[in-house]
Amino acid sequence: MSASRQPVLGILGGGQLARMLALAAAPLGVNALVVDSAADACAGQVAPLVKADWTDYAALEDFARKVDVVTFDFENVPAETAQWLAERVAVFPNPRALAVAQDRLAEKTLFRECGLATPEFMAVDDRAGLDRALAVVGAPAILKTRRLGYDGKGQFRLKTMADADAAWAALGAQAAKHGLILEAFVPFQRELSVLAVRGRGGDFRTWPLTRNWHVDGVLSMSLAPAPDIDTLQPRATELARTLAERLDYVGVFALELFVQEGELLGNEMAPRVHNSGHWTIEGAHTSQFENHVRAVLGLPLGDTGARGLSAMFNWIGELPGPAPVLRGVDAHWHDYGKPARAGRKVGHATVCAPDAATLAQRLEALGKALGREAQVAPTVEALRRG
Amino acid sequence: MSASRQPVLGILGGGQLARMLALAAAPLGVNALVVDSAADACAGQVAPLVKADWTDYAALEDFARKVDVVTFDFENVPAETAQWLAERVAVFPNPRALAVAQDRLAEKTLFRECGLATPEFMAVDDRAGLDRALAVVGAPAILKTRRLGYDGKGQFRLKTMADADAAWAALGAQAAKHGLILEAFVPFQRELSVLAVRGRGGDFRTWPLTRNWHVDGVLSMSLAPAPDIDTLQPRATELARTLAERLDYVGVFALELFVQEGELLGNEMAPRVHNSGHWTIEGAHTSQFENHVRAVLGLPLGDTGARGLSAMFNWIGELPGPAPVLRGVDAHWHDYGKPARAGRKVGHATVCAPDAATLAQRLEALGKALGREAQVAPTVEALRRG
Ligand SMILES: Nc1ncnc2c1ncn2[C@@H]1O[C@H](COP(=O)(O)OP(=O)(O)OP(=O)(O)O)[C@@H](O)[C@H]1O
Ligand SMILES: Nc1ncnc2c1ncn2[C@@H]1O[C@H](COP(=O)(O)OP(=O)(O)OP(=O)(O)O)[C@@H](O)[C@H]1O
Repeated sequence: MSASRQPVLGILGGGQLARMLALAAAPLGVNALVVDSAADACAGQVAPLVKADWTDYAALEDFARKVDVVTFDFENVPAETAQWLAERVAVFPNPRALAVAQDRLAEKTLFRECGLATPEFMAVDDRAGLDRALAVVGAPAILKTRRLGYDGKGQFRLKTMADADAAWAALGAQAAKHGLILEAFVPFQRELSVLAVRGRGGDFRTWPLTRNWHVDGVLSMSLAPAPDIDTLQPRATELARTLAERLDYVGVFALELFVQEGELLGNEMAPRVHNSGHWTIEGAHTSQFENHVRAVLGLPLGDTGARGLSAMFNWIGELPGPAPVLRGVDAHWHDYGKPARAGRKVGHATVCAPDAATLAQRLEALGKALGREAQVAPTVEALRRG
Repeated sequence: MSASRQPVLGILGGGQLARMLALAAAPLGVNALVVDSAADACAGQVAPLVKADWTDYAALEDFARKVDVVTFDFENVPAETAQWLAERVAVFPNPRALAVAQDRLAEKTLFRECGLATPEFMAVDDRAGLDRALAVVGAPAILKTRRLGYDGKGQFRLKTMADADAAWAALGAQAAKHGLILEAFVPFQRELSVLAVRGRGGDFRTWPLTRNWHVDGVLSMSLAPAPDIDTLQPRATELARTLAERLDYVGVFALELFVQEGELLGNEMAPRVHNSGHWTIEGAHTSQFENHVRAVLGLPLGDTGARGLSAMFNWIGELPGPAPVLRGVDAHWHDYGKPARAGRKVGHATVCAPDAATLAQRLEALGKALGREAQVAPTVEALRRG
């Protein structure tokens, strides 16, 4: 690949996903160029960074000239910016796929068209609309902004109909700008995600299903391959393939699913590499980051098989002391190089093992050494029940 | 590790070793800063680069102020430069260890002191000295420069005593500046290397022994863990430990060995991460690059165990088309981002497998697809004999 000129991958957004994309691009002989409005965005520690916001078209014009392909670290890049770039340079995933995934209403509508059930939902435009939606969807329910939500932000949980005023007080102001959606609260048995990748030529692959645990709407732990999933893998793979083909999607995406009484319900689709796929760096033959780079550049996709089992700890707000992970067997530390701040994703750690019993043992020992017993407990239990 | 300020690792030399060190440093929250006299050195694609030569003390002064620790991508940094830096900032490995490893005579003398036999050798200072050395060492023999040789450069092979004039014509001019050494040519059965790491607190570990094949004095293939090594592993580990403790060595080094009739002979020591350890990126729980970063920064060392078996192809001069590797199972591509040039190390590929038979099969298929049958043949044979 490094002929006279190496390919340059443009990345919109300079957070940890861009950072890990750039690190995965390097061994392929691909250089990254990152755009972020913050000059100190953490991807800038491993790749050159252009400081610009999404409407700085002079800077974006120059950026477009320097790169071969543009992709996203951040799915909430304005649709107009994506479209503007797509008129100048190859952009993957395409702006239409991005637009669908940016909008919870469009996304869930597409899920249903593709044969994937979803929690009951209804768009909410005003206070009266919230009452109408509650009458249809019932309680408990969750009111969410249609756009720009992430990590459980822009959400309000309604236990009963009586919480409507409080929900409106919290999110009503955003109805006009971002739109709102009311979803039935699903008493799911588990949460899974399908990490999938589709190449420019249509080649499609999924990694083994990942089981996820969230705390306060933010991913806390992932486990892959998800144990005890019976026949869900082929169904999840087929759904992801249908979605990808409908959107003519190129690159990696995550489809987040709830499992309720053995049935899959679609929660959302992330049109990018995803936190629940970080285990693939050490736990799969090809990581989500490497395959995303390959896909958008039109290179052959790599094998998505897992080596053994992997569990990922997400570090939110601040990093624990790294020594227990650094000393662990087949345990891997990832510090994103960001200052600590409440609620912020600042790093993760992945622990691998050849079998479930060994992984449970390693997780339990690490949880204790890190003072994170509560964080690992559900994952250890899932492994032991297996 | 990323408290208010992240640690900065200074690297002298900006080639592929610096590049892979910087890529391994990032997940630890460690930033790299590279010095090279070439502004386009390939490590500069993944880390900031200071363009300076080894005597540009103004630039080095500034560099020393910006970094927490200094290490080497290149062992032939002048001893004075290393010493000068060590008076200002922590330098690992220490300049004395570097000086020993830079000099084939000092190195082999140390090997013998540590109980490691070497090929017969003798220093050569002038033309008459070559005759005296030939009388002691015998033929066939190899005349080498004492310093600054790499990849088989600065070497002349003498089949018989009658080649003395030709050897002197080739290397005599370097006797005054770099010194020369005559070594007996060893009809070895195999070549091995021990990759070892020692931490700032003295913790010492080795990776499983690696078997190496050279072509024209340049590494062509590596295989690890080396099959059929009987009892050589504990002996090699103990020798490496003795050497490391003698030199108060901190960081990764490689000890290159010949096996002749079941006995180990010391060839040379590379005071840095080493080409024969590239397989550790995917094939070991902790790579040589990550453990070097950990060691020099005083972090706990990681587990050096292997996952399955790995073989590395070295790409010399130019890269083959990457598609067969990108499509392979558990096959990994490494393009160093350098322009093609005869004799230059421009990349490598690593293929892993759970057992010898599967690895042999994968290597054979890849060798064919890449048009590199001859390159893989000896490794495949070693795996099949096992
Ligand atoms: N309808 C629902 N029923 C039950 N739980 C839900 C529902 N919607 C969201 N949750 C819970 O909240 C978590 C985060 O919700 P969601 O995925 O909508 O948020 P987000 O802000 O888009 O987060 P991210 O994109 O980071 O995953 C879910 O993974 C799930 O645990
Ligand atoms: N005394 C010897 N007998 C037999 N073969 C030798 C001898 N010395 C060197 N060789 C062969 O040449 C190869 C390169 O030699 P050596 O390690 O001295 O070179 P170098 O230039 O320092 O290379 P590098 O540091 O890149 O390994 C060895 O790995 C071995 O295959």
